[in-house]
Amino acid sequence: MRTLNVSLGARSYPIYIGSGLLGRAELLVDKLKTPRVAVVTNETVARYYLQTLTDALHGAGVTVTPVVLPDGEEYKNWQTLNLIFDALLESRCDRSTTVVALGGGVVGDMAGFAAACYQRGVPFIQIPTTLLAQVDSSVGGKTGINHPLGKNMIGAFHQPRAVIADTDTLKTLPDRELKAGIAEVVKYGLIRDLPFFEWLEANMERLLARDGAALTHAIECSCANKADVVAEDETESGVRALLNLGHTFGHAIEAGLGYGMWLHGEAVAAGMAMAADLSRRLGWLSRGEVERIRALLERAGLPVTGPRLGAARYLELMSLDKKVASGRLRLILLRAIGQGVISSEAAEDQIRATIDACCDA
Amino acid sequence: MRTLNVSLGARSYPIYIGSGLLGRAELLVDKLKTPRVAVVTNETVARYYLQTLTDALHGAGVTVTPVVLPDGEEYKNWQTLNLIFDALLESRCDRSTTVVALGGGVVGDMAGFAAACYQRGVPFIQIPTTLLAQVDSSVGGKTGINHPLGKNMIGAFHQPRAVIADTDTLKTLPDRELKAGIAEVVKYGLIRDLPFFEWLEANMERLLARDGAALTHAIECSCANKADVVAEDETESGVRALLNLGHTFGHAIEAGLGYGMWLHGEAVAAGMAMAADLSRRLGWLSRGEVERIRALLERAGLPVTGPRLGAARYLELMSLDKKVASGRLRLILLRAIGQGVISSEAAEDQIRATIDACCDA
Repeated sequence: MRTLNVSLGARSYPIYIGSGLLGRAELLVDKLKTPRVAVVTNETVARYYLQTLTDALHGAGVTVTPVVLPDGEEYKNWQTLNLIFDALLESRCDRSTTVVALGGGVVGDMAGFAAACYQRGVPFIQIPTTLLAQVDSSVGGKTGINHPLGKNMIGAFHQPRAVIADTDTLKTLPDRELKAGIAEVVKYGLIRDLPFFEWLEANMERLLARDGAALTHAIECSCANKADVVAEDETESGVRALLNLGHTFGHAIEAGLGYGMWLHGEAVAAGMAMAADLSRRLGWLSRGEVERIRALLERAGLPVTGPRLGAARYLELMSLDKKVASGRLRLILLRAIGQGVISSEAAEDQIRATIDACCDA
Repeated sequence: MRTLNVSLGARSYPIYIGSGLLGRAELLVDKLKTPRVAVVTNETVARYYLQTLTDALHGAGVTVTPVVLPDGEEYKNWQTLNLIFDALLESRCDRSTTVVALGGGVVGDMAGFAAACYQRGVPFIQIPTTLLAQVDSSVGGKTGINHPLGKNMIGAFHQPRAVIADTDTLKTLPDRELKAGIAEVVKYGLIRDLPFFEWLEANMERLLARDGAALTHAIECSCANKADVVAEDETESGVRALLNLGHTFGHAIEAGLGYGMWLHGEAVAAGMAMAADLSRRLGWLSRGEVERIRALLERAGLPVTGPRLGAARYLELMSLDKKVASGRLRLILLRAIGQGVISSEAAEDQIRATIDACCDA
């Protein structure tokens, strides 16, 4: 097992990465205020892993309230969030109950937001079971739900007390979701870690083959990068925005098609390719570097072009994104591979040119 | 104008108390990140005060999005909260937009919770227009909504950047709401300020006659007490719970009758009388002191007995209240007038005796 630390003063917490961690209740029990948890998961994950976790917790004397949600991004809304509150209240969970998220990004975001709001905040632990959640969404305390007019528009910063990434859970992950997770892994290389990007170029096939050592290394490097950024800027007033590389274009894709058509990581992959194209138009990347980025994403089986929504629709959806500072469209772009930058320099016609060039005919 | 300060480090903020403050846009403008606000209010308050505030803000060059909610505690729920999110998104408010609550406790709690969650948190300013909101709910950062199974079960701690209490707004306050606000005023005397309790005994009739100087003094003393407590314990891990004197019984009354039948302050008044009775059963207050408390509340026209719900129902509703530590019923009681205490000492049969003694036949 590898252990990383997210340094946030009194809210610091460990990230455990390794095999067989679901059965190691002590990792979790150490972080509880009282031996009482509500495990929030979805129907798919529950089938595979809820029993293992519950058995381990019962063995450690912990009372468990399971909350099983329907599976899918389309359920990341008020209605589903309320199912969590209903269950917590019906089983009389109090302020000392810990909410445990067992699942992917959607489960983690919703369970975390429920923990942030239930009785104005209860403790929270993340047990991410998808690659995307293990390398990205489970770390850093961002929680929330979607609104018909925008993704993650309603939410809270609520740091977990621990993140437990059991790499065994990736064995049941569908290929498409594994690849979507790799998009966020590539992101860390692009924004701040050229050596990791080069490692990915050398090892992409091992990741796709689910080689355990390769996955563990990729998760560890990703989490180490994310932990650094989060420690520097917990609530995204500055450098943390770099983690949104590809996300403004990506959110437009997801919202424009309707949530659930593309996976988040797929939209981010196309969005990163678009951000690379735009960075080239600003004179920061060469054509060769843009190609190198696209080639790595394509080797991971990820899309590098967006759907044809029309530039006007993209721009409309992008300006609804949270990354708007007083009317100016603020984007994450690349000065080089391994060097992300927060920039408002792109003119609207340059953004339009990128959309026209990078979307399917 | 009087100015108090709530000392919370980087989250410290002023409370302004006085006449004519709604027209003084500079108090508010000083606290904005950008000249853009969403003013959340209700239909009743909007009729009286929205134009005055909007005119003042427009005069200071601030763009205003009004969000007018239906009036009443029964609307303090997800559906109404979503109306705020819809309005913020439809008018493209971004992370730098400030949410301003113009209204009573319900408006303040909902607008504050919306500000806490919108894009994971935007700035927030309170302009309370009821006595209860001016002396209590607008200060301290508690925000939230009700759930069918419990009051304020879903919420967040989100401190305002300023509280602007314009005493002129109390001129249009219905008598019943003025009295309900006085319940919370009396609370500060009971839990930590014997001289203020004695001042209230000497000046209750002036308050009921809406004497300006008396109201200003009562608001200032109340806010000063509240600011002290909040500065000591922002998130209610300890002493802040004292502010809940009467609230556990009170929440049972409100929930048991259905929200909206009794005003919050009325339920708190009866709850404080019940807490006093229970404190006497524990040997802390004399019969004379209990009578003195009841007499002051009765002079304010407040109820000192609860509705007949039955002890079993009271206990059921009370144990759903947030003030439960791992299954034990934790109550705020009185060691003396002016000395509140957080206690789990009351046995269930003593609580039952109080409910039987203090509820209507």
